[in-house]
Amino acid sequence: MSRDRLYLFDTTLRDGAQTAGIEFSLEDKIAIAGLLEDLGVDYVEGGYPGANPVDTGFFEKKRTRKATFTAFGMTKRAGRSAANDPGVMGIVNSAADAACFVAKAWDYQVELALGSTTDEHLEGIADTVRTAVAAGKEALIDLEHFFDGYKANRAYALACVTTALEAGARWVVLCDTNGGTMPAEVRQIVGDVLEVAPGDKLGIHPHDDTGQAVANALAAIEAGVRQVQGTLNGLGERCGNANLVTLIPTLVLKPFYAERYETGIDAPRLARLTQISRAFDDRLNRAPARQAPYVGASAFATKAGIHASALLKDFSTYEHVPPESVGNERSIMVSQQAGRSNLLTALARHGIAIEKDDPRLEKLLATVKDREARGYSYDGADASFAVLARHTLGTLPDFFQVENYRAMVERRHNAMGEEVTVTEAVVKIRVEGELLMSVAEGNGPVNALDLALRKDLGVYSSRIEDLELVDFKVRILDGGTGAVTRVLVESRDGSGERWGTIGVSPNIIDASFEALYESITYKLLITEAA
Amino acid sequence: MSRDRLYLFDTTLRDGAQTAGIEFSLEDKIAIAGLLEDLGVDYVEGGYPGANPVDTGFFEKKRTRKATFTAFGMTKRAGRSAANDPGVMGIVNSAADAACFVAKAWDYQVELALGSTTDEHLEGIADTVRTAVAAGKEALIDLEHFFDGYKANRAYALACVTTALEAGARWVVLCDTNGGTMPAEVRQIVGDVLEVAPGDKLGIHPHDDTGQAVANALAAIEAGVRQVQGTLNGLGERCGNANLVTLIPTLVLKPFYAERYETGIDAPRLARLTQISRAFDDRLNRAPARQAPYVGASAFATKAGIHASALLKDFSTYEHVPPESVGNERSIMVSQQAGRSNLLTALARHGIAIEKDDPRLEKLLATVKDREARGYSYDGADASFAVLARHTLGTLPDFFQVENYRAMVERRHNAMGEEVTVTEAVVKIRVEGELLMSVAEGNGPVNALDLALRKDLGVYSSRIEDLELVDFKVRILDGGTGAVTRVLVESRDGSGERWGTIGVSPNIIDASFEALYESITYKLLITEAA
Repeated sequence: MSRDRLYLFDTTLRDGAQTAGIEFSLEDKIAIAGLLEDLGVDYVEGGYPGANPVDTGFFEKKRTRKATFTAFGMTKRAGRSAANDPGVMGIVNSAADAACFVAKAWDYQVELALGSTTDEHLEGIADTVRTAVAAGKEALIDLEHFFDGYKANRAYALACVTTALEAGARWVVLCDTNGGTMPAEVRQIVGDVLEVAPGDKLGIHPHDDTGQAVANALAAIEAGVRQVQGTLNGLGERCGNANLVTLIPTLVLKPFYAERYETGIDAPRLARLTQISRAFDDRLNRAPARQAPYVGASAFATKAGIHASALLKDFSTYEHVPPESVGNERSIMVSQQAGRSNLLTALARHGIAIEKDDPRLEKLLATVKDREARGYSYDGADASFAVLARHTLGTLPDFFQVENYRAMVERRHNAMGEEVTVTEAVVKIRVEGELLMSVAEGNGPVNALDLALRKDLGVYSSRIEDLELVDFKVRILDGGTGAVTRVLVESRDGSGERWGTIGVSPNIIDASFEALYESITYKLLITEAA
Repeated sequence: MSRDRLYLFDTTLRDGAQTAGIEFSLEDKIAIAGLLEDLGVDYVEGGYPGANPVDTGFFEKKRTRKATFTAFGMTKRAGRSAANDPGVMGIVNSAADAACFVAKAWDYQVELALGSTTDEHLEGIADTVRTAVAAGKEALIDLEHFFDGYKANRAYALACVTTALEAGARWVVLCDTNGGTMPAEVRQIVGDVLEVAPGDKLGIHPHDDTGQAVANALAAIEAGVRQVQGTLNGLGERCGNANLVTLIPTLVLKPFYAERYETGIDAPRLARLTQISRAFDDRLNRAPARQAPYVGASAFATKAGIHASALLKDFSTYEHVPPESVGNERSIMVSQQAGRSNLLTALARHGIAIEKDDPRLEKLLATVKDREARGYSYDGADASFAVLARHTLGTLPDFFQVENYRAMVERRHNAMGEEVTVTEAVVKIRVEGELLMSVAEGNGPVNALDLALRKDLGVYSSRIEDLELVDFKVRILDGGTGAVTRVLVESRDGSGERWGTIGVSPNIIDASFEALYESITYKLLITEAA
């Protein structure tokens, strides 16, 4: 049976960005676009050029290789042509491949919010689409509040669809903007829209306000649409957008969908899903949802006593899909089998050659599990894993030893009565038998320690000259200041290589120092070979 | 149109109890049963008497007034009659009104896991049901892995259904035990089961492994079943059970369902939903899910600026249900697009009365925008907003002044050569003209400062005795240790009230201190009135 192509449109960097407490920097957007390319979505909606400096900067160049790089904006304002609308032209003149304009599909809102007429609004949709298409962009129209608009005035909602398509839009997306539509309604309404528009030009944009965003996406696909808009980990305002991480495995692994539809996500990409989802949470400094479908830490966790040991051997009797297909792990508090093969894979990735039955593997496995139980997570700290592995296997050079360190922050008044904060750190290390002691001031205790630690590394100083700290994330596990702090440090050197290191301690300074120390150690490791 | 009665069956205390990390004490179970009565569910499945002491104790007396108090267990073991099965009799002899026995509906599992024959298993179902009914209990049968069993051997699965009903079961519940069934499949399979059994004796027990537990429940109801099994806040192993808190408002408020079905939940009970959901999270000491449908803190939160002020007046244009119907609140956040009207709404929320045209409003607006540009975000720090507002409006009492503070972390070797970290903080404050100086040690610099700051607040010490720090979040804005740190602190006091405060500085210690200081100030503010 030939399969229809489904297109996945990610709006993490645009609709997802509207989530309370989320602010993407330019660096963040570039990194997340990279994750999305790795996943294999078809469209990456990167933001709203012209709306703020980060988005304008993001659209100065094309940020994706394969995915269609899409800019978001609004259809032209009433009273001027699209070509004279700076918002529209900002998008048209950007480095985007495609332009996705939001328009109203509810007559009441056109009058109330835009102070426009329904005819003017239709003409605005057409003019905007034509302008974008003429400029060589693929044009999409997001019809806001489509389902409510359809229920209020079916003819107008359908006219918005046909107007956009006739003007040359590649896609018209039906948005359930307030998230209150039921799957049965989606099915029925989409069926009606298909009377006036072909399914392969229609998309669905659900929200999770009734906990059915994914179900609505699937209902729309079953009814005939061929594009789905969602976000990584369901990021989005209120209750979130449709979670692509939840949706994609269902489309790729469940026969009902896999037999009828194909996406741009093959098996190897799907197997990276868990790692991509967690890398995204790391970047947002958010705790991953333990119970997330498919990728959550608990998603395939069973209490061993529930299942007779006979069942344990036949996973299909209690697992709906194999966890490895999405890059997750089965977690049965009995077996360590899953751990061993993951470890060998990770060691190979670092060029550490070791036999499958080397006795040191058990020790390393136990060390990693013990650390993970204490709060370490090597998902975003691969360099710390490399250091730990070499240390456990006895192949880590002893570059320098830290004798002691201290950091002090003092907030006081200076001689002129102004409030100032003074931060000073002292680090004492031993290199090749020689004791070196350095002091530095910084704009915070970790900055001061970082500077003091790197100030004088004796014979190694030149090898860390191009080492740069790029990002620093802090997470408190178990809440409160009495709990464990996990610090993730991202570093970079002159070659452009980036690596992550981790430190865990009840004391944030100790945790930070550990991560800094491992970053330097890793840099010395990778510059050893020559 | 006459409506069909839908029965809500809560299994928080049984299936929900299987969640990793969850242990209910007897006290917990009694309190949670109270919450469930308050909500108005029809069945409360309290646990498995005989399986452990808490459950056995829980079933010594009837713990519900209106809801049917239900005990869970397994159908009789092979080789003995139900009357001679201690497990079954433990349930039959308990104070439960109803008994819900789990049985296999998948022939393969009967052989593999039970070492029984399919015929013996059917006879076991019948014998168990008859025994319970004869003892005066309402009998239910949970058919485990029903949908997979049906796909493997339709005849056997259906035989399990009819056998249970013929023996006198009031309900047969179709369980999607591994959570992998699609709504379309549920619809089709339930439709087939209805050929051999009446819908008003059938129930559905979904799991959320594909993010569609609620959708599956609704699909089953639409197909004809009349009982739904779920849990509070979707508690449950792996990805959780069907979340009754998400499902109930849809059934009661959405016309498609409200016109066809009635439940035991009337409008006043529904309006207690948010409070019940949060009380449950409090009992489990879990952070409530901010983005939970209907009851989440963000569920009705919009960033102003997205909506023209015209829309703000007509809530139905962007809210799918009124938040008050589920006991939640509309929240228009004081954000970067904060306009004058948003500010007034936020001030009113804090009981700060002010005229629309008060000139101080402009100043406050400018202050908020300036702070937000510097990294402050008041979304999760409403108490800091209250403090800032009163300060700007000149109505903040001057409780105490901080003269200076310092925090020092030192990592060194002690007299026994062990590596230790010593963390000490000193805080000097002035209260009612008197200089008070305190020192404290902590397991980190912020913990030490927190303890030192609260150690001696002079005349205010008693008012902060019940102040507790609950959570502490750190984010670095713009990456690297040379950037701005944003610290969010969540606090709680003896009354159960929670609030958030924020601090922003390039120095993490200063940022933390600011958030701690504002939390104390807010606590003093709210205890001022008397």
